[in-house]
Amino acid sequence: MTDATSPALRIALAYYQAWTSHDLDKAMSYIADDIVCDAPAGRLRGTGEYRGFMAPFVQILTGSKMIAAYGDDETALIMYDTETVPVKSAPGAECVTVKNGKITYSRFIFDRAPFDAARQAAT
Amino acid sequence: MTDATSPALRIALAYYQAWTSHDLDKAMSYIADDIVCDAPAGRLRGTGEYRGFMAPFVQILTGSKMIAAYGDDETALIMYDTETVPVKSAPGAECVTVKNGKITYSRFIFDRAPFDAARQAAT
Repeated sequence: MTDATSPALRIALAYYQAWTSHDLDKAMSYIADDIVCDAPAGRLRGTGEYRGFMAPFVQILTGSKMIAAYGDDETALIMYDTETVPVKSAPGAECVTVKNGKITYSRFIFDRAPFDAARQAAT
Repeated sequence: MTDATSPALRIALAYYQAWTSHDLDKAMSYIADDIVCDAPAGRLRGTGEYRGFMAPFVQILTGSKMIAAYGDDETALIMYDTETVPVKSAPGAECVTVKNGKITYSRFIFDRAPFDAARQAAT
């Protein structure tokens, strides 16, 4: 499933390991200062916006499981399932570009619909 | 990006090529009769349910672009962007299990939120 010889995948997995362990500081150490992330709600630029996006998610995260992970020199593609307080199964996929040991670009896919539904149900 | 030596990826790419060319019959030829697909709205079982899920999507599809694709013997992981009539950019990710040249299991991720919003805006 995982190919540890891929430099990009090594970083993607270290990043995944950090944020799924609720260690956001360590996770951010793998993120380039000028990260660009295309997330469902739109483009995030820079570590400030990126951390602002990840922090609330890490707070509601109660579990995670890697589904598949692949990579080559500069690109890694991973898919995982997460368990969160409002949504029992919230799978995600990330395609990241890695340069000099840092994630410089991320394409991030998850389904916002169950989170929207949980928010509406809570109000 | 793509590793054509992966038997699973070969099938996943042939399947992708077929449905993004609006050839649903050919696409379904890569799907096992007892396909299980975990999609955002829940689990689909069998080619009837699977085709019923794909057909409306293929109808609104106006473009697609592969983002990344990897695989090994039995598993392939792909991420792509699609352009549809209601949603300009609707990226998706699929992790498929391939046995005897057919996709037997698929984990499928996309964001339903913009489709829900487009539907509400149309009513």
